Parts: sequence; structure tokens; C-alpha cells
Amino acid sequence: MTQSNRQYRLAARPVGLPKHSDWKLITEPAADPADGQLLVKVLQLSLDPAMRGWMNEGKSYIPPVGIGEVMRAGGVGMVVASKNPKFAVGDHVSGGFGIQEYCLIDGKELSRIGLVKIDLRLGTLSQWLNSLGMPGMTGYFGLLEVGKPKAGETVVVSGAAGAVGQTVGQVAKIKGCRAVGIAGGKTKCDFVVRELHFDACIDYKGGNVRDGLKEHCPKGVDVYFDNVGGEILDTVLTRINRSARIVICGAISQYNNTTPVKGPGNYLSLLVNRARMEGMVVFDYADRYALAVKDIAQWMKEGKFVSKEDVVAGIENFPDTLNKLFSGENFGKLVLKVAEG
Amino acid sequence: MTQSNRQYRLAARPVGLPKHSDWKLITEPAADPADGQLLVKVLQLSLDPAMRGWMNEGKSYIPPVGIGEVMRAGGVGMVVASKNPKFAVGDHVSGGFGIQEYCLIDGKELSRIGLVKIDLRLGTLSQWLNSLGMPGMTGYFGLLEVGKPKAGETVVVSGAAGAVGQTVGQVAKIKGCRAVGIAGGKTKCDFVVRELHFDACIDYKGGNVRDGLKEHCPKGVDVYFDNVGGEILDTVLTRINRSARIVICGAISQYNNTTPVKGPGNYLSLLVNRARMEGMVVFDYADRYALAVKDIAQWMKEGKFVSKEDVVAGIENFPDTLNKLFSGENFGKLVLKVAEG
Repeated sequence: MTQSNRQYRLAARPVGLPKHSDWKLITEPAADPADGQLLVKVLQLSLDPAMRGWMNEGKSYIPPVGIGEVMRAGGVGMVVASKNPKFAVGDHVSGGFGIQEYCLIDGKELSRIGLVKIDLRLGTLSQWLNSLGMPGMTGYFGLLEVGKPKAGETVVVSGAAGAVGQTVGQVAKIKGCRAVGIAGGKTKCDFVVRELHFDACIDYKGGNVRDGLKEHCPKGVDVYFDNVGGEILDTVLTRINRSARIVICGAISQYNNTTPVKGPGNYLSLLVNRARMEGMVVFDYADRYALAVKDIAQWMKEGKFVSKEDVVAGIENFPDTLNKLFSGENFGKLVLKVAEG
Repeated sequence: MTQSNRQYRLAARPVGLPKHSDWKLITEPAADPADGQLLVKVLQLSLDPAMRGWMNEGKSYIPPVGIGEVMRAGGVGMVVASKNPKFAVGDHVSGGFGIQEYCLIDGKELSRIGLVKIDLRLGTLSQWLNSLGMPGMTGYFGLLEVGKPKAGETVVVSGAAGAVGQTVGQVAKIKGCRAVGIAGGKTKCDFVVRELHFDACIDYKGGNVRDGLKEHCPKGVDVYFDNVGGEILDTVLTRINRSARIVICGAISQYNNTTPVKGPGNYLSLLVNRARMEGMVVFDYADRYALAVKDIAQWMKEGKFVSKEDVVAGIENFPDTLNKLFSGENFGKLVLKVAEG
């Protein structure tokens, strides 16, 4: 039986915040697999700040999504038809399925799609999009491989209640560091401290980040994991220690800018402090994801690590739900639930 | 016989480019050494961009020069009186003598002043302020320890005809890299290519840096050694390779700003390229200066390394000569000759 497949395709390159008219919702039949192919029923999709960058023209670490193409997105799903010997009907998988209900995958495309089986004994579907998925991998490798925290050091992370931020702070605590978050609003900050067990969380909407850093990082900042850019990056630069490491993971405050990105005016603090600012892209660590999954799943099992998702149901809610990321409305990893399973 | 000692003291904290009224020229007698002390006759003084930073209030890698204090500066001189057993009359020395004709040094201050004997068989007095002095050490350790160039990579350096820049490019060549300079004006660029043997030099005053980088760095930029900041840093950021290293050594374009420093708006290129921007301060390598001096003196002797100084005579010319650094008028390491010797 051929299923109908709803898809969100990119209709126009957004200027600033994506609008409804930048998307086109299309329904087409989900094709039956030919030899070597398999059909995945998409169950949940990951909505990430990085998606905003993929909508722009121009060179980045991966090519932009083309106009008329299904919007790129990672997701988890179940194999519902297979003529590929490596995958059986009923297998749970993750991969770059895009914003659609079904994804037909050719045997030759497995690595491009990043298709891998996932083990639901290690975590739920949503957790496989969060702590055990890209955000978890980003936080884990970005902190440990680029931030290189040492026990006793102070690690600050912005977007602390978000998908990457929650991993960074919790891994920092597990590694013996002081973890200080920056998040927007009292509810998020309370969550970060009470449920994620950060040492402190600074509310950038309700107070002064500079004062918060003075109060909560009395020994200065050794590692800053930056998800936001803009003013917060500039403020943290005034509080870094000698030989500090700043991990540039993203700059959500700048993604919808229609004016040029604001560079960190305090970057000469890097000179004074012999400090480093370094970019990271999670795909570089793909050959070691399994190692991180094993660690994080173990920590979750031991109750040392919390995975918090914000699940919104209905593929038709994609455009509005994506924009929650940029207003900071989401609370935890933002997941779009496409189907039960 | 007591000598008269002319000194430049800081009269006011400059706003923008230092003015004559920011200085006070004072003449006082040079004191005779007491037990443990020695008196150095200053022969040549080093004028450096970093001096501008020392005139500002506020935290930096060293405290600011106080109002009324002799302006801090490195120099070379000769011991003319000594009641310290470690130094004899006639010894040539380098150290932080300040802008004055005589410097009385207490035995307890030797390390604060950085007083060391220098060997004029390895280089001239001016060379001891340039390739064998702080700029040489900055270029050598900044390039090799922070930039970490590999043979075959492309190294770009701004301020290429300046004291640090000439060292960076020449060491890069010696290490088997492609060396591309950025300098202001055809005369400097010609010098950089013809006499320092860089592969190319981009004239930022006479052309477009972006086009120059495209032409002269066909394989992109692996190491950028930044002495200038501002627009040039931002332009180079658009041309860096994956895993590039940017050494932040200074930002002369920003030192006299009366508006906030312009941060690099293209810093997200660090993310896309998994690249790093790292600050350095030469003092951190003090325990290995001798190693670098040995290398550079040997290269000079073999004719592989040129040390170019711009020597201006007369301590009374200090205020105007210092400002040549900021207009880019100096051609090579700027040295103020205070006395013959």
C-alpha cells in the first residue's frame, strides 16, 4: 500500500526569521523501495539552530538546501519496507531524513544520509535525537576535545537549557568542573540548576550577564562553550582566565540577522589571556559517536545525566515550531513528533 | 661625574593618537649607583605598537604605565658604573630601561627589568632590539608555537615589513612554507618580496586584500599571523582553510580607536573551518629566548635572514617617532637612537 508523504520544501531563502511563505508543504506518494532501497517511516524529527544556516546561500561546512528541496533535518524512524539486506522491517534507525513523513533511501546513499540503527534499550526515540544524537555528540566532543576542561576548572555554557548546552554542563560536572549556564528566563535557569545540577545559571533576560559571571565564576572562566554569539560572547570574553578555551559551536543570536554578524569586539582578550577561540563541527567526530553514546547512556542509567526534550506533535506545525528556537521559547531539545511509534 | 638624564614621562592618558601634551620631558641627574646597583647608559630604544596599550588604564598582561612615570620601553645600552658583581663597566645589556638616557638599576630589580647581557658578536645593537630582541622572539615563538606551520602550508602575516612581520615570514620560509605578507605601500611590499624573500606581498593601501589573497594564496590560508586586526583580519577570515590557525599578536589598526574595538564579524569562519584564533604574549617564552637567538643569529650569518631597522636619532624625537608606528611610516623595526656606542 502506498502511503501519502507530506513534506516541507524550501520555497525561498529567508531574510531574517523564516516566514510561512519560505516553505511549501507538498503531499506526494511515498515510493515503494526498488532493489537495494528501503523506506523509513519518520517518527520524530530534530529541529536545530544549524538548520537556519543551511537555508542560506553560500559556502559553509555543508552545501545549502536547494530551493525546492525537502528541508534537511535529522530524525529517527522505523523501517517499513526494505529491499536492502542490511535493514529489516521494524528496525529503528536515525539519519538525515528531512522534514517529511516517509524517506526512501537508496543503498548507495546510506552514508550520505548517515543512516544507522539505533538501540531503544539505550534511550527513547527523543533521547536519540538529543543526548544520544547530534546535540549530545556536539556537546560531548566539543567540550572534551576542543574545550579540554580539567577537573576544578570553571566551564560556562550559553543556551544551557538547550540541547547542546545541557550536555555540555552535565559532562562538565561529571568531569569534575564547576558548570555555570546562561539561559533565558527563570524557569529555564531553575531547571538547569535543579534538574541538570549545574552549579549556577545566569538569566540573561532577567539580569546582567557580567554581574552573573562575577558572582558565579569567582575564579574566572576557563572554558566557554558558545552557542549564541553576540553580546553574551563579548561579555564572557571580559571574564576569561589565562589559557582559556572558547568553543565556537554556534551563534544563534546572529542567525536571523539581516545586518552583518557582530564580531566579538573584546576578542583582544584572547591576546591578553593567551586564550583560544576554536570552531567545531560535530561531523568530524562521527567515527567516535558510539563511544560517546556508550558514556552518555551509561550516565543516564546511573541517574547522573538528564535528557530533556520539548516535543511538539504534528508535521504541519513545523514552520512555527522551528521559529521557537530563535525566540528561545523551546525548553530542552526541540523535537517534532511526526508519528507515534 | 654625574650625568644629566633626560626622560619622557607619561603626563596624561592619551585619547586616540598620543599628543605632545601627553608627554613630559624632564631632565634630572643620573644617580650614582649604591651597593648592588648599576648605571646603564641607554644607547638605543625599541619603539613598539604594544607601548600604546601600556598607556591605557585597565587590566592587560602587564600593568599600565602610571601617570608621571618614565615611559616603559625596552632598550640596549652599556654599563657605565657598577656596584653589582654580576655586571662590569663596558658590558652591553638589554632590558626595560624606559625612555631615558640613563637607567639606574637595583640588584633586586634585575628580573623585573629583564636585564641581560647581550653579545654583539651575534648581532648589532639595533638587531638586538629587532630580530634578536622582543620582535624577533614574538615572531619566532608566535609562529612556531601558536601558528604551528607545517612545511608546504601557506602562512600570511600582516605588518609584514614591520619588526614582528619580517621575522614571521622569514621563519615561515625557512620552515618550508609559502609566505605571503600584507603591508602598506609599494616600497614596503617590494622590500618584503625582494629582500626578505617572501613569496608575495599584498599592498593593502594600493589594492584589494581579498583579491590579493585569492591571487597569492591559491591553496587558501593555513596560518595567519595578525598584527593589525580590523578589516584585514576580517578579510583573511574569509580565506582560511580547514584547521587554520590565527595567531593574535596585536591589532595596531585598533590601538588609537576612540570608539570600541571592531570585532571580527567573520569569526564564524572559525566554526565552518574548525579553525582556531589564539592570543600570544612573548614574555611567556622568556625561558627559551636563548634558543631563538641562537637560531636567528645563525640564519643571519648564513644570509638566510635579514634584519631591517628604521633608526631615528635623538631622544627629543620620541613623541613624533612613536607615532610613525601608527601611521605606518616606519620601514622595519623602529629604533630610537639615544647615544652613540
